[in-house]
Amino acid sequence: MARPTVRATIVQASTVFYDTPATLDKAEKLLAEAAANGSQLVVFPEAFIGGYPRGSYFGAAIANVTEKGREEFCPEVDRLEAMAKKHKVYLVMGVIEKDGYTLYCSVLFISPEGQYLGKHRKLTPTGAERIVWGFGDGSTLPVIQTPIGKIGAVICWENRMPLLRTAMYAKGVEIYCAPTADSKETWQATIRHIALEGGCFVLSANQFCKRKDYPPPPEYVFASTEEDLTPDSVVCAGGSAIISPLGTILAGPNYEGEALISADLDLGEIGRAKFSFDVVGHYSRSEVLSLTVRDYPAKAVTFTSTSGEGSPQSQI
Amino acid sequence: MARPTVRATIVQASTVFYDTPATLDKAEKLLAEAAANGSQLVVFPEAFIGGYPRGSYFGAAIANVTEKGREEFCPEVDRLEAMAKKHKVYLVMGVIEKDGYTLYCSVLFISPEGQYLGKHRKLTPTGAERIVWGFGDGSTLPVIQTPIGKIGAVICWENRMPLLRTAMYAKGVEIYCAPTADSKETWQATIRHIALEGGCFVLSANQFCKRKDYPPPPEYVFASTEEDLTPDSVVCAGGSAIISPLGTILAGPNYEGEALISADLDLGEIGRAKFSFDVVGHYSRSEVLSLTVRDYPAKAVTFTSTSGEGSPQSQI
Amino acid sequence: MARPTVRATIVQASTVFYDTPATLDKAEKLLAEAAANGSQLVVFPEAFIGGYPRGSYFGAAIANVTEKGREEFCPEVDRLEAMAKKHKVYLVMGVIEKDGYTLYCSVLFISPEGQYLGKHRKLTPTGAERIVWGFGDGSTLPVIQTPIGKIGAVICWENRMPLLRTAMYAKGVEIYCAPTADSKETWQATIRHIALEGGCFVLSANQFCKRKDYPPPPEYVFASTEEDLTPDSVVCAGGSAIISPLGTILAGPNYEGEALISADLDLGEIGRAKFSFDVVGHYSRSEVLSLTVRDYPAKAVTFTSTSGEGSPQSQI
Amino acid sequence: MARPTVRATIVQASTVFYDTPATLDKAEKLLAEAAANGSQLVVFPEAFIGGYPRGSYFGAAIANVTEKGREEFCPEVDRLEAMAKKHKVYLVMGVIEKDGYTLYCSVLFISPEGQYLGKHRKLTPTGAERIVWGFGDGSTLPVIQTPIGKIGAVICWENRMPLLRTAMYAKGVEIYCAPTADSKETWQATIRHIALEGGCFVLSANQFCKRKDYPPPPEYVFASTEEDLTPDSVVCAGGSAIISPLGTILAGPNYEGEALISADLDLGEIGRAKFSFDVVGHYSRSEVLSLTVRDYPAKAVTFTSTSGEGSPQSQI
Amino acid sequence: MARPTVRATIVQASTVFYDTPATLDKAEKLLAEAAANGSQLVVFPEAFIGGYPRGSYFGAAIANVTEKGREEFCPEVDRLEAMAKKHKVYLVMGVIEKDGYTLYCSVLFISPEGQYLGKHRKLTPTGAERIVWGFGDGSTLPVIQTPIGKIGAVICWENRMPLLRTAMYAKGVEIYCAPTADSKETWQATIRHIALEGGCFVLSANQFCKRKDYPPPPEYVFASTEEDLTPDSVVCAGGSAIISPLGTILAGPNYEGEALISADLDLGEIGRAKFSFDVVGHYSRSEVLSLTVRDYPAKAVTFTSTSGEGSPQSQI
Amino acid sequence: MARPTVRATIVQASTVFYDTPATLDKAEKLLAEAAANGSQLVVFPEAFIGGYPRGSYFGAAIANVTEKGREEFCPEVDRLEAMAKKHKVYLVMGVIEKDGYTLYCSVLFISPEGQYLGKHRKLTPTGAERIVWGFGDGSTLPVIQTPIGKIGAVICWENRMPLLRTAMYAKGVEIYCAPTADSKETWQATIRHIALEGGCFVLSANQFCKRKDYPPPPEYVFASTEEDLTPDSVVCAGGSAIISPLGTILAGPNYEGEALISADLDLGEIGRAKFSFDVVGHYSRSEVLSLTVRDYPAKAVTFTSTSGEGSPQSQI
Repeated sequence: MARPTVRATIVQASTVFYDTPATLDKAEKLLAEAAANGSQLVVFPEAFIGGYPRGSYFGAAIANVTEKGREEFCPEVDRLEAMAKKHKVYLVMGVIEKDGYTLYCSVLFISPEGQYLGKHRKLTPTGAERIVWGFGDGSTLPVIQTPIGKIGAVICWENRMPLLRTAMYAKGVEIYCAPTADSKETWQATIRHIALEGGCFVLSANQFCKRKDYPPPPEYVFASTEEDLTPDSVVCAGGSAIISPLGTILAGPNYEGEALISADLDLGEIGRAKFSFDVVGHYSRSEVLSLTVRDYPAKAVTFTSTSGEGSPQSQI
Repeated sequence: MARPTVRATIVQASTVFYDTPATLDKAEKLLAEAAANGSQLVVFPEAFIGGYPRGSYFGAAIANVTEKGREEFCPEVDRLEAMAKKHKVYLVMGVIEKDGYTLYCSVLFISPEGQYLGKHRKLTPTGAERIVWGFGDGSTLPVIQTPIGKIGAVICWENRMPLLRTAMYAKGVEIYCAPTADSKETWQATIRHIALEGGCFVLSANQFCKRKDYPPPPEYVFASTEEDLTPDSVVCAGGSAIISPLGTILAGPNYEGEALISADLDLGEIGRAKFSFDVVGHYSRSEVLSLTVRDYPAKAVTFTSTSGEGSPQSQI
Repeated sequence: MARPTVRATIVQASTVFYDTPATLDKAEKLLAEAAANGSQLVVFPEAFIGGYPRGSYFGAAIANVTEKGREEFCPEVDRLEAMAKKHKVYLVMGVIEKDGYTLYCSVLFISPEGQYLGKHRKLTPTGAERIVWGFGDGSTLPVIQTPIGKIGAVICWENRMPLLRTAMYAKGVEIYCAPTADSKETWQATIRHIALEGGCFVLSANQFCKRKDYPPPPEYVFASTEEDLTPDSVVCAGGSAIISPLGTILAGPNYEGEALISADLDLGEIGRAKFSFDVVGHYSRSEVLSLTVRDYPAKAVTFTSTSGEGSPQSQI
Repeated sequence: MARPTVRATIVQASTVFYDTPATLDKAEKLLAEAAANGSQLVVFPEAFIGGYPRGSYFGAAIANVTEKGREEFCPEVDRLEAMAKKHKVYLVMGVIEKDGYTLYCSVLFISPEGQYLGKHRKLTPTGAERIVWGFGDGSTLPVIQTPIGKIGAVICWENRMPLLRTAMYAKGVEIYCAPTADSKETWQATIRHIALEGGCFVLSANQFCKRKDYPPPPEYVFASTEEDLTPDSVVCAGGSAIISPLGTILAGPNYEGEALISADLDLGEIGRAKFSFDVVGHYSRSEVLSLTVRDYPAKAVTFTSTSGEGSPQSQI
Repeated sequence: MARPTVRATIVQASTVFYDTPATLDKAEKLLAEAAANGSQLVVFPEAFIGGYPRGSYFGAAIANVTEKGREEFCPEVDRLEAMAKKHKVYLVMGVIEKDGYTLYCSVLFISPEGQYLGKHRKLTPTGAERIVWGFGDGSTLPVIQTPIGKIGAVICWENRMPLLRTAMYAKGVEIYCAPTADSKETWQATIRHIALEGGCFVLSANQFCKRKDYPPPPEYVFASTEEDLTPDSVVCAGGSAIISPLGTILAGPNYEGEALISADLDLGEIGRAKFSFDVVGHYSRSEVLSLTVRDYPAKAVTFTSTSGEGSPQSQI
Repeated sequence: MARPTVRATIVQASTVFYDTPATLDKAEKLLAEAAANGSQLVVFPEAFIGGYPRGSYFGAAIANVTEKGREEFCPEVDRLEAMAKKHKVYLVMGVIEKDGYTLYCSVLFISPEGQYLGKHRKLTPTGAERIVWGFGDGSTLPVIQTPIGKIGAVICWENRMPLLRTAMYAKGVEIYCAPTADSKETWQATIRHIALEGGCFVLSANQFCKRKDYPPPPEYVFASTEEDLTPDSVVCAGGSAIISPLGTILAGPNYEGEALISADLDLGEIGRAKFSFDVVGHYSRSEVLSLTVRDYPAKAVTFTSTSGEGSPQSQI
């Protein structure tokens, strides 16, 4: 009954803006490299496919994103499935997803057999993200049981939501992926704390972007000092890292450049960590503190007949 | 993934009263003209086949309608299918439908291949209409997915029903047909609002009728001033119009006479409109406000065995 | 049982930015003028106290709002109560409200006796408003019964939410206040439609602002053509108007400048309008379409003992 | 409405084992020094009065604690009240409390006026602590409103309980005291994360103890290498620190020796932090995730008459 | 805060049947002897004053008891108060009490100052006792706080009632008096178990009676073998004993004859016992198992005005 | 309707430490022997499979248990089912169960047909057990109806919990199994009392262990006098016994060595005992004393959709 050791890689790299096919090519190249190195699980950053709309004059950036990029935002799931299958890895990919007329910041899970396993939609976008991205609901908080452990994903500042994390812990997450766009030093405190709190491995992947990776002004305008930036100025510094359930830093944080960051995850560490602190087990106090998770889809309109439900595309 | 532009025509014309074959001939002539002009979708007014029982002494009009017109009220669906097929257009036609012993004010949908696609029955007749027309139910609120967009229809003052419209929005309506008998100026506010609210194209077709189009008194008596009317007095002034999802008036309103009113609908406008306001998407608050639509047929009697259901069959 | 006629005034004027005391002085001056003219009800625009953070580089505007303006955002409710009492009018005032650490775009209701009657919090902020303003919940959707009719308020694009409006209709709103920041021509369609749909008077008040009313760049930067603006360029064109339940425009829209816009509201019109179309009455179809409104406060944490609840108190 | 700046001190010092009067003398000396330095709030470590029963052969340590120390475990609340009053500070003191026949690891809150304000009992003891300390319940989770902010305390690994922390956030905690016995480096990640998550100041006070501060074997036996310890070996390394709501380290961590560690807390930082992330406000999703806190006392037996309740009285 | 050691005596002796003054004289003689020996607390058997109606033809015995003994059944409380005061002991006395027209098997508590402190009425009489004795209610379950510990009493087979005992434990009983009429060997298991379960001292006093102590047949008829009994046959064999909270037998059981049975009770033992097992403290699971005690008087009739309550007053 | 007589055997034997397969072999050998002797029910001691972590330096013992023994702790339920089926007996087996990351001290019930019937998890571990074992909840308190009577189990010092026992009595327990690790003489008082109190048979099985049955130091260190122990020193003396509902000792206690201890249980005794004292029947006083048992699973997190629950699955 001994737990396996899993080789995992987090990808720290930038989207190719306004060019989803090129972004997918880049993803596959990085994936292939990680797989060649024996990795069984590859985790990409938030919004790797679709791009993270960074910029101080966010409104402008967002306007451009939505004008120019909209057609590209349908993640090419077929392509992702094919690359995961070809390289025989679990793929956890940050994407911008379009459903009806709403964009979501999501993470897709794909198996080494090339099967789509599920997705997580960011519950609460941060600040100006709320202009472009919708709010997820309780129906897309999966923790996926696999032979290499139970895998889930929580995106960027969602990781600061204690009730959301507790829902993930209750679902038994063991490999907790934390794709992010936060490269501040304080982020390290958050991911280490989560590892300790949840008794799980935390894999935090962020993009590493220079100014030149983003479109020029006026589409993207960075900070009030856009004029001070050179093409090589770093506008997203990465900081991707892998943490063990006892809070040990297994790899990273890397603030240097694009990179594959890997570690061997001894899943037996989870049990050793939880022996002392099991957040939804022996250390919980359900009779005092109990969380309710409404994990059904939020719908403004419910049709009583299932067949005629008519969320876009009832053909009658 | 770019959305197409669709040429659509609304027909502003009068029923030939008490003469359904002639009305059908007139319909086909108008349809042919629109098709010749490149139109892919043709929308007729409320009750075009069957006639709208207008008149201030409504009771009288209705009495006559029901005595004289009853046998003619079965729309010749075969004929409609044939003309849509011949001219290769989507046909949205206002009809008076007879089911069992009840008349309904309905709209039929027919494909360019000549297939009957479904129908909408007016949920709530207005005022004296209730004397002649039955109440529809939740089973006939279709939104039909087609290559030229998702098409639905809501009839006349039904368009003032916010919950009904919301049901249509939830089904993803993109080309929202609003056959009507209301030619007042305030109607324009309603259809522009709907386009803004629903992020959809609104195609409102009304009849244009002079006194002479209607049978003479005492069968139809208009207003208290029937005596002031000449045969050329306008008794239904039209006002048909086409509105874009951003509220722009694309064509009409026409208060001049019978006409074909056309516009090119750039379906890409829908996404641009919904980016800012998506009524059942990011702008809804399903946890506060939620609508339930009971979209099964209303039946006073239910037979527990499916085989013995035995309700009188629809004649369409 | 005849219904009274009520003299109502909507105020079309600009906030004095970064100066709440001066804004309150201005409010009182306008209120006094309206009262002197016999007005019984005075409605101010959205965010009149606190200011509407307009600007294309919204991020910058918002940053400045929150840095500079935060301390001023507590509406001086005492002052508002005093001025309503002094001038003996019902006061409906758009404010920015602070509760805990969240700002809300709200409307306050104050009686001629100087009593605070309730508030409405905007349910769904639009676009970049979501960066600064929180989402209201179902507990602040009041319709207030007064001797001059049942008064409610719905703010700006909330007016496009058909389920929210239906909730207001169900509460019996008669004087439907629609403070807004939308001065586009299409807005007129929306407010006329609402009057028809709801069978109520609609009083829509918007600010009228020139460029010089707003702080200069870089705090507020308008459009991509800030450089083309003169101090007298109009950046919010008003369009305030009063509509009757039959869709008649009683006053406005005014696109000329700051103004008081008044009308006499014959409440008897409501019954005449609803005779033909009663949206939650004889024209509804509750067996097919039913709306559920969850009108309790949304709370992430519930304490089972009321005494120990300890949530941060609202500052209003 | 500007928020004050508060000078706070955390005490990093060792209990005088088996000598509560001497421990109280030491507490007062440290308190006086902090007060002389202008401190308005002084926070002591977990179990400062009573002592933390550390040792690898925990059973033995505990046996000795309970045999020898039991009589001393009643904190001299009168003495604590007097010293807080004399030095005019808010005092947050870790104590071992005895209620009936159960010991609790608690924190007491005392005002500068010498008033006892409340207490927090540790909800879930860790590991071998469960042999000596009982489990608190939901009735002792106070957040105390004071002129220097809202003060609460969560003890040691309780700080890893996400639901407990959320309860504190919902009560509005601003100065979050985290007395602890954990001097590992990973603890720093936890307290920084809490500051970011809760948007509050975190004041973490730990003891600094050398081997000689503890009684000799066999009463206390440290690790498997007791033989390798000298009297000056550090057995609890401190690590006390003060963190701002934005995650900035204001003071500490100190791993050097006994010390007073002070910082000026600008309470305005709380609002600035919560603007971007308000954990139970705009960043919560109460319709998806909701926590219930049962904050009444847990009692195995309830007497229906209040007068006859007769449960053994707390000795505090 | 060290707990005292208390010298306690249980009396094993027989009632003088049909002669309450003689029984009281006998009581005082035994009391004086115990006091002279340093005892601070003296506990008498069940029904010592009034007599326990033993006999196989119980019905006959009871009939006689009630006929003959009725007048004598009012315990001379003044006399008991005087003797406790004179000898400066806490007196716990088994009596038959008369209230209205009902007899109760009760225990009275009297202080060394000669104050009546309260009484316990047997909740559930056993078998044929139900013919003569009423059922007590929740209002007479006192645990009395004294300088020598918290004293309560539970009578005979009431001691088998786990919920009643739990109520006593919740009231903090330390010196648990168990007057009884059960002299079987199994009784020893019960009282030892209670000491372990409750973490309290158990003082079980029983009468020691020979056949001659009871009235002759036909008033009292023992067993089916009355004929085999000699006047010196033992009909109640005593078995009085004192048990410590750790289950140690401190004195008794005595099956030999009338006797005073004493022990020194080290109250510190209570805390030592409860450290490992605290029945309503750390070893309870109130969230799973909770007991409700209705400790108000049971009254068949309630008068809504307090002044007119009018129930027959207790004769004690 | 006469009740049967049931032959039952309790097993007094030691776990084979760190060797679950050998322990199971030993279990089967003992089971077979009991069955050959006609036994219908075989009861094993607490933690027979998994081992009881005894030792004065409990911390050390526990550390070793959890490091070394964790993989062995999944009771081989299949094996237990097979042996019960093969030998056609009811099997009541003490095990250490692993659920998620928490160990529980449990008892399994298996039918002669080889069916798993349910389990009881210890509600409250004692002292240092709390370091290794979790707390059960109200959902695992079964009393199982079988042709040989209603069987339940309460483990070790849980037997001191009066409210838990009352719950078992209310469920009608007739054959009350009391696997234990307590070999003190006082234990006999407890089990005899329970038989009397509950009117049930009590079957208490304990291990009999010599020092050599446990691993050597430092893994297990006994008492402060480890040095005084020889390999044959008895460290758990057994004391297993079978008691009738009237408190009669039917077999045991055996303090001599490993043994099978059997008795014939005349179930008719239960009715005879309850005639005089029926603890939840005629001798209860529910209007004064009422117990509430919350017998649902305790969960820190509840998912509203059953499908998405995803809590880690029990390994049993």
